[in-house]
Amino acid sequence: MATVIISNQRTEEMVGDLELLDPDYRRYVGNQAMRMAWCLQEGDVLVLPMPADEEFLRYVAESLGIDRDSVHVIVPPVGRAGEGVLSRDRLNDERFLAELRAATTGGVDRVLPFHFDGSVAELTKALGLGAVTPGFGFLDQGGGKLLNSKSTFRSLAGGVDAAVPAGTVVSSQEDAEQFLWNALLDRGHPAILKQDFHVAGYGNEIVSPISGVNPIGAQRAVVVETREELSKYLADRWEWLTDGGRNQVVIEHYLPDSAPIYAEIRIEDHGVEFTGHGEMRMKPVLNGLIVPSPSSGTAEFDGFLDTVYRLGAAIHAMGYRGTVSVDAIVTADQSILINEFNCRTGGSTHIHRIGERIVGSDYFEERVLVELRRCVFPAFADALDALRSHGLAYDPSSRTGVLITVTDDSSVGGFGEYCVVARDSEQVERMEAAVAELFAARQSGA
Amino acid sequence: MATVIISNQRTEEMVGDLELLDPDYRRYVGNQAMRMAWCLQEGDVLVLPMPADEEFLRYVAESLGIDRDSVHVIVPPVGRAGEGVLSRDRLNDERFLAELRAATTGGVDRVLPFHFDGSVAELTKALGLGAVTPGFGFLDQGGGKLLNSKSTFRSLAGGVDAAVPAGTVVSSQEDAEQFLWNALLDRGHPAILKQDFHVAGYGNEIVSPISGVNPIGAQRAVVVETREELSKYLADRWEWLTDGGRNQVVIEHYLPDSAPIYAEIRIEDHGVEFTGHGEMRMKPVLNGLIVPSPSSGTAEFDGFLDTVYRLGAAIHAMGYRGTVSVDAIVTADQSILINEFNCRTGGSTHIHRIGERIVGSDYFEERVLVELRRCVFPAFADALDALRSHGLAYDPSSRTGVLITVTDDSSVGGFGEYCVVARDSEQVERMEAAVAELFAARQSGA
Repeated sequence: MATVIISNQRTEEMVGDLELLDPDYRRYVGNQAMRMAWCLQEGDVLVLPMPADEEFLRYVAESLGIDRDSVHVIVPPVGRAGEGVLSRDRLNDERFLAELRAATTGGVDRVLPFHFDGSVAELTKALGLGAVTPGFGFLDQGGGKLLNSKSTFRSLAGGVDAAVPAGTVVSSQEDAEQFLWNALLDRGHPAILKQDFHVAGYGNEIVSPISGVNPIGAQRAVVVETREELSKYLADRWEWLTDGGRNQVVIEHYLPDSAPIYAEIRIEDHGVEFTGHGEMRMKPVLNGLIVPSPSSGTAEFDGFLDTVYRLGAAIHAMGYRGTVSVDAIVTADQSILINEFNCRTGGSTHIHRIGERIVGSDYFEERVLVELRRCVFPAFADALDALRSHGLAYDPSSRTGVLITVTDDSSVGGFGEYCVVARDSEQVERMEAAVAELFAARQSGA
Repeated sequence: MATVIISNQRTEEMVGDLELLDPDYRRYVGNQAMRMAWCLQEGDVLVLPMPADEEFLRYVAESLGIDRDSVHVIVPPVGRAGEGVLSRDRLNDERFLAELRAATTGGVDRVLPFHFDGSVAELTKALGLGAVTPGFGFLDQGGGKLLNSKSTFRSLAGGVDAAVPAGTVVSSQEDAEQFLWNALLDRGHPAILKQDFHVAGYGNEIVSPISGVNPIGAQRAVVVETREELSKYLADRWEWLTDGGRNQVVIEHYLPDSAPIYAEIRIEDHGVEFTGHGEMRMKPVLNGLIVPSPSSGTAEFDGFLDTVYRLGAAIHAMGYRGTVSVDAIVTADQSILINEFNCRTGGSTHIHRIGERIVGSDYFEERVLVELRRCVFPAFADALDALRSHGLAYDPSSRTGVLITVTDDSSVGGFGEYCVVARDSEQVERMEAAVAELFAARQSGA
């Protein structure tokens, strides 16, 4: 039986009107969609928002040990919102549905989207898979939207007694101003304001009483020194923060110099299964997802994982089935505070699949995986050739080396991603430096 | 240790702007607040939206076997929204807080509101009771609002595989029209449209392709015969249905000639406890809450109670603690379909307290309790005198008779409520007829 993998990294439910997204950003997201190719099994169907490089697909299939030709790749006709996103109109397109039905005549037993939103629920029904999809009853009745709300996160975190940054959920500008000023700004603390439904920091802003705060996980940091300035800022941004008055806003204490970590779990019918954890590298540069998290040795880490299981149990009882990524920060004084969860395929899910399926079941203990994003690449064939000819390509016998996880076919570069598999962080650093040098040389020589 | 009972039957979080409520309706709700007097224990504090009749309070205390003078009744100064509702400004009033603190110096160990919303969370913090209040972490972070959302109900019901009326949750007028027409109206089925956050049918409307549908649990029934009429209806009502575009709308198949039932449970730290169940009487007149539910003998009733426990387990895992009332309908063909839950003190909670504390722990097996609402009453002293002199007042030795649960001091009548405790439904009918005759005579004679 096969899976229909739907690489819908951004959806209307998550970001509102997809047409308003910057075309470059849409292209970046569309490129990221290739990450889900690393979830492919023999005979699967892969639905992408943009055509994938055929050589890259063959490389992924070969790395995973599956037959590329057993996989059916479908790109639905471009919709109103343009390339890069699998908007609802694309997933409902009649030609697409016909092609999908034809591709799945051999039998499909599940749908694995990045984000199981209403449009995927409709598609699942159209394929007649509602009854066999775990958690479908919940997802079909708006459960995905419910759990991807940041205000829902705050309530559930309060409910399972999770350590979270000081914060609240507000509906009115007046309450926002009062909490922001009295609880945070007037005490010298920066705050992060989060739109209820946005993803990946795209709907977050930082408001700080001091300048120089580095906005990690947010679009920008705004300096606000007086209550009048705060009032003006809120008046300006309230429409945006509430999506035109529709939603609540989450306000939290923003702790600079914290390292973002995550733990990924799977909610199965029988209970919560652990996938893994990782951390965003902050130094020497802010780029690099490190698996497993280097913070896993700190005093509060086991408590963090316990809380992840408690949140998972609540989400399980509610009826969701699928991946949950719980995000937290490790503060300068090594406290761990949870600041959101995302009930969808994670940005890290493909790295754990690479670990399990390519490196081996002991990858989490025996290896360090570091994923680099927004990298400048030569063309895919050149990049792979360069890695291979310099002994840097992933080698199944040593179980170390570099895998290209997302290729970059743009003329300007910056959309490609790769993953270094190494025995330890020193080896990662060496390989990473070698790859950077190599790609820069090929790029300039191109 | 004492409890602060806060009789906030309607709050801003539940119904939006309380000032917009019709004054008569506000008075009706303010009168209902007396129901919570039946939850009093020795030494408690009772916060009411309007002054209570002193004779009535003594009657309640005597019936419960507690000392009236041990109970402190506080009515906060009237706020912006007027009498009848404990609006947020009233619960935050400095004079009220000072009086409350003075009344609770003897020690208070919990807060029992009708509805644990944000304003009660603030009050709980102001009393220093956050840490000892079960579920406070959840409630303090918007959990009450989350669970009192009808769209949350639809998702959780889907998640625990509850039998619910066919329906969906929509955000757009276009989706609403499509579902309403294709799934319901065009097939000859009436629909009920529910605002996400309103209570007690106040935010519900029925749209029906045929006339003559009796709007139970809704404000009115609108006849819509064509798709054009539907489109026009939605255009007119969308602002109201979505509270100005803020919220989602729940749409469900409306099944006329169904009997509304409920089951009440308590979510405790250790798990789910069963309180009881009941049913709204539909015949001979639509008035009368019957405990226990006469439908408890039907084939699907045990399955309904199983589902109530599964919903309770999900709500427990999420972190809520307190009363949950699960509402359902028994359709003409004896199916039981759940159509909402309410995570707050129920409209029936006081009846079960009367059962447990006045009738005795076997009340649910040995007695039938019927509560009549919106009754025309003489003044309280007259009403009680009439009941006593005709042998109709509740008698602890026979464990039968009538209790006045809410008195009516309005000049027009219609706000009073009473509860008949009887051995069986025949005895209920006899007593009910006798009371009606008696009160009508006193009323006309006044």
